[in-house]
Amino acid sequence: MTLTQESFTVSTPGRGLIDITSVLNEIIAKKNITEGLCNIFLHHTSASLTLCENFDPTVQKDLESFMQKLIPDGDPLFQHVEEGPDDMPSHVRSVLTQNSISIPIQGKKLALGRWQGIYLWEHRFKSYERRMTISIIG
Amino acid sequence: MTLTQESFTVSTPGRGLIDITSVLNEIIAKKNITEGLCNIFLHHTSASLTLCENFDPTVQKDLESFMQKLIPDGDPLFQHVEEGPDDMPSHVRSVLTQNSISIPIQGKKLALGRWQGIYLWEHRFKSYERRMTISIIG
Amino acid sequence: MTLTQESFTVSTPGRGLIDITSVLNEIIAKKNITEGLCNIFLHHTSASLTLCENFDPTVQKDLESFMQKLIPDGDPLFQHVEEGPDDMPSHVRSVLTQNSISIPIQGKKLALGRWQGIYLWEHRFKSYERRMTISIIG
Repeated sequence: MTLTQESFTVSTPGRGLIDITSVLNEIIAKKNITEGLCNIFLHHTSASLTLCENFDPTVQKDLESFMQKLIPDGDPLFQHVEEGPDDMPSHVRSVLTQNSISIPIQGKKLALGRWQGIYLWEHRFKSYERRMTISIIG
Repeated sequence: MTLTQESFTVSTPGRGLIDITSVLNEIIAKKNITEGLCNIFLHHTSASLTLCENFDPTVQKDLESFMQKLIPDGDPLFQHVEEGPDDMPSHVRSVLTQNSISIPIQGKKLALGRWQGIYLWEHRFKSYERRMTISIIG
Repeated sequence: MTLTQESFTVSTPGRGLIDITSVLNEIIAKKNITEGLCNIFLHHTSASLTLCENFDPTVQKDLESFMQKLIPDGDPLFQHVEEGPDDMPSHVRSVLTQNSISIPIQGKKLALGRWQGIYLWEHRFKSYERRMTISIIG
């Protein structure tokens, strides 16, 4: 059994969800691990990793609508506002979701459910380079 | 050190929390791992895995009440409605909780706290077969 | 490759976030693991582990303000009230955040982002001894 790590970045086009399932599966395929466990870690506190329904894009729109209603940008409740109205809401969204997810590997790829994808969720309005590390055990 | 995996399903009777601690401990007991780490992964996006207080059943009722108030079924905010008023709220509940939890193993069982159990949380109204994979390292 | 575990407690001064990054890094430094993966598990259901922005303390205040607004102490919605108005809100906060986080190890310490710390979030009003287990693979 071995543990290998690889860090990589994904550019986000601003707020919204990006399917990173195939990016991760490409890295895993190179490792030749038939059965194992991997962890994906996001090195940021204003974006998230999320397991989400991958068939109907409306699900992603509805997740965004829900979060915007739950944590309004520019809410006067927040004191941490120097970087803009989306700064503190992004940290709250990050805390309410995940920055680290472990997923089994089977058949040299992520053993996700049929309707399950893994997404990088950019919470900031602007584009960012988001760095992740995948750790693969198997 | 080895990594072993086992997939299994649990039938849910519709919305609510089901204690799966003993199901998991039975699988772990067979592996004969004294000290290790396990990950439980749920292959669905409309149910969750949750660590919850395991003594007073009122806690589970209160968690349900809170979620129903936070994410009302049939909320006109949502566009993803083909499968019914509980469909999109179930995805939101899943995103706000967990689908993957890692727990240490000590003494050949889950090293949970005294008042801590692990629950499968069905968010849909109907009964489902929910598939999980446990990965055990040790 | 080995797996080692260490359990430890942290005293909380009542509700609020405590940076435990250096506590964890001290344990990891002793293990002499250059590259690996660790999991931190909290054996309680009324406190959380959270990855949070570590530069501006206002972020922690804003996270608290948000949670207090989202899950009001003493909310008549809750039936589990024997231990006080902060009891059930603490369980809800725990369910909406994390009790188990896996983080890569690089260079014999946690490979966190530049602005990322790991925090123990006490949700109860009173001081508690909170027990955690760190599992280190590498």
